[in-house]
Amino acid sequence: MAQDRLETIVSLAKRRGFVYPSSEIYGGLRASWDYGPLGVELKNNIKRQWWKSMVQGRDDVVGLDSCVILAREVWQASGHVETFSDPLTECTSCHKRYRADHLEEAYENKHKKKPESLAEVNCPNCGTKGKFTTPKQFSGLLKTYLGPVEDESGLAYLRPETAQGIFINFDNVASTSRKKPPFGIGQIGKSFRNEITPGNFIFRTREFEQMEMEFFVVPGTDETWHQYWIDTRLAWYKDLGINPDRLRIFEHPKEKLSHYSKRTADIEYKFEFTGTEWGELEGIANRTDYDLKSHSRVSGENLTWFDQEKNERWTPYVIEPAAGVDRCALTFMMDAYTEDEAPNSKGEMEKRALMKLDYRLAPVKIGVLPLSRNADLSPKAKDLADQLRKNWNVDFDDAGAIGRRYRRQDEIGTPFCITIDFETLDDQAVTIRERDSMAQSRIAIDQVQSYLATKLLGC
Amino acid sequence: MAQDRLETIVSLAKRRGFVYPSSEIYGGLRASWDYGPLGVELKNNIKRQWWKSMVQGRDDVVGLDSCVILAREVWQASGHVETFSDPLTECTSCHKRYRADHLEEAYENKHKKKPESLAEVNCPNCGTKGKFTTPKQFSGLLKTYLGPVEDESGLAYLRPETAQGIFINFDNVASTSRKKPPFGIGQIGKSFRNEITPGNFIFRTREFEQMEMEFFVVPGTDETWHQYWIDTRLAWYKDLGINPDRLRIFEHPKEKLSHYSKRTADIEYKFEFTGTEWGELEGIANRTDYDLKSHSRVSGENLTWFDQEKNERWTPYVIEPAAGVDRCALTFMMDAYTEDEAPNSKGEMEKRALMKLDYRLAPVKIGVLPLSRNADLSPKAKDLADQLRKNWNVDFDDAGAIGRRYRRQDEIGTPFCITIDFETLDDQAVTIRERDSMAQSRIAIDQVQSYLATKLLGC
Repeated sequence: MAQDRLETIVSLAKRRGFVYPSSEIYGGLRASWDYGPLGVELKNNIKRQWWKSMVQGRDDVVGLDSCVILAREVWQASGHVETFSDPLTECTSCHKRYRADHLEEAYENKHKKKPESLAEVNCPNCGTKGKFTTPKQFSGLLKTYLGPVEDESGLAYLRPETAQGIFINFDNVASTSRKKPPFGIGQIGKSFRNEITPGNFIFRTREFEQMEMEFFVVPGTDETWHQYWIDTRLAWYKDLGINPDRLRIFEHPKEKLSHYSKRTADIEYKFEFTGTEWGELEGIANRTDYDLKSHSRVSGENLTWFDQEKNERWTPYVIEPAAGVDRCALTFMMDAYTEDEAPNSKGEMEKRALMKLDYRLAPVKIGVLPLSRNADLSPKAKDLADQLRKNWNVDFDDAGAIGRRYRRQDEIGTPFCITIDFETLDDQAVTIRERDSMAQSRIAIDQVQSYLATKLLGC
Repeated sequence: MAQDRLETIVSLAKRRGFVYPSSEIYGGLRASWDYGPLGVELKNNIKRQWWKSMVQGRDDVVGLDSCVILAREVWQASGHVETFSDPLTECTSCHKRYRADHLEEAYENKHKKKPESLAEVNCPNCGTKGKFTTPKQFSGLLKTYLGPVEDESGLAYLRPETAQGIFINFDNVASTSRKKPPFGIGQIGKSFRNEITPGNFIFRTREFEQMEMEFFVVPGTDETWHQYWIDTRLAWYKDLGINPDRLRIFEHPKEKLSHYSKRTADIEYKFEFTGTEWGELEGIANRTDYDLKSHSRVSGENLTWFDQEKNERWTPYVIEPAAGVDRCALTFMMDAYTEDEAPNSKGEMEKRALMKLDYRLAPVKIGVLPLSRNADLSPKAKDLADQLRKNWNVDFDDAGAIGRRYRRQDEIGTPFCITIDFETLDDQAVTIRERDSMAQSRIAIDQVQSYLATKLLGC
């Protein structure tokens, strides 16, 4: 049932142009996805909302865009070269590879106790019990080589997180933006991880886009700020329409915290994937002064803060809300997907699939649909679409039955559809229909722009 | 003089927070740059203008966001594995490496004739004549390895252009977006090239962001559409304020065309770099049906178009306007940089540096500057800044002399500065000063929002 829901979304995403399997004409590249015309608009809208809420809309946060490929020393100082690895195991019966910790978690979720060892665990693929190889640590860093020769001298890593690009620029940003703690630096960009088991559609992929913000605070105020950001980020998802019953906070157990973390809380969404009901949507970590101190030590540069008021020098603590664009896109699509009923052309009730996306996130804001393809209606409708396109993403569609065209716009989450019919030629008015309520209003053409500006305020 | 101008921009960019040398605390990574708080806003504004003009604002173009890492076969079919390489040579005297074709071009620019061989060319670094090694082909593709073992089975490439992600999705996009030729697919994203000689600040770097659009047309109409896109793209730069005298069209000579191209025209900007006066800002190529045919042949998938009206099947021709976000950022900064004179606090004329950026591109739209840091003025100014921040990127600054704060906003290109002074407490009005003219207007506080909305329309 729940997995059905994911399959419904995967299928809709492909059929309507949100997400395609990447490199599909070459048989696909495992767990790799390309965003189509609607997917890229959805992602852009998510990123814009995050940037507005986390960077531009705040006096205490500024933006950054650092490189994917940074100096090698960055990943030595951050601990990634040494510790960024996962335990890889293989079922010797079917040769499928797994992360040992994921197998153990799935066992624990099902049996409500930890397994003593992998010997107790069944292979999720072939069902064979306990035929796993001894887990080996496997680096999550993707390597590349710069320069003419493929050797150690040109070795570089693709960043596995955008955060380190922020830490190494702490001093540059603080001095040029004239900010002082508490203040933050936000960044949106791609990261790459050599995942053993990517999967669940766009939930876990080897390349993915992050929205990370590092918030630098006075030591001792870190726990209060941590809670502030957990609350603020949870509110962001709710404000953008995610069902609160499907959101929860998951506290990382002390013994499982990352090497840099004092406390980490995840915002989880109830994806109901097979084997794991809840999945991480965003992690909010108290990274302490670990990163700035490491970079100071390894680089020899002083990344402390001189507090002029107190006349003392200290290393800021860092609170990090780290979200994923792709996971957000998946969550917003899954959460918005709804089935209800609508009358067909004969007035009979039929099943209707729709995405109740927040207007701000909807890829297309307005569908312009002439009742039929006609020498009078089509040009009038095209003119209107061209006008509206100056302000919003507009879809003009005059192909096929009007009912089918409405269904399409509902399924992709378009808030408003405008119908131009033969009456329009007489009364210079159009019908505007709202997606969720299906309520229709008759609006004079010269009022359409201002009518929609009010309805789509903030989009 | 001209190189001075570049150095002025590099220094301003660092000092004000547009662009920092990447990994600076680790001694830097050659020709690698991170964008600071102002740089990321400038880039976002450039991308937004491109997207509005090339994708959202048009009925005949849709967007896409494909992966950086695609199936290996993509780069075999595109010809990149075989032919995407540059001739690498080294001066045996000082051991500096060059692209042989760049050395030849520089010679030709200076002497107005091609060199017979590299034996005639002086090393730009040490001046030694003709001590170059025989040029060797050097692949511009950056490799990485997916999966647990670093061998041929996991070999993958980082894309050197976003275009191929569009070609392989041609069928998916055409069918889900219900477009038919002529129509285009636009994409913004990072690409990576193993450049031998990156340099000139953010002009040529190993990782860079592209804005590419592939426009699919009926064969036979390709030349007309090619000219249309050359004109349209040139107009885009002029509309965003680039000095037309510093723009020109450069036709690629027939014998130097890429393997896929029938005709390529570059939009060049007069950067006046040392050794090369004009530099490529954007390339607009007629890629013919080369890419779709190659992918059809290699993948076995049919990437032709069935023309229902004519009842025939053909492969679309492709026109590609390909711009770079980083080059645009450099161009807009260099072109906007101006020095004039302004009165200082004593009424004497002093040198003023300013960036006359188009309002739409300016990273900060409004500076809010209380006359002095004061218990009455600061909170009032902060309130106003918070209000305006809902709509625009706003900089609140109350530190130091007002004259210096004006200079800072001028230098980063902020169109409007608002001063809150002691009169404000009486008349509830503020002074708004425009950047270029330095004209000042006294505006009632409750009129500021609508006053600026008019001035910043379309930003």
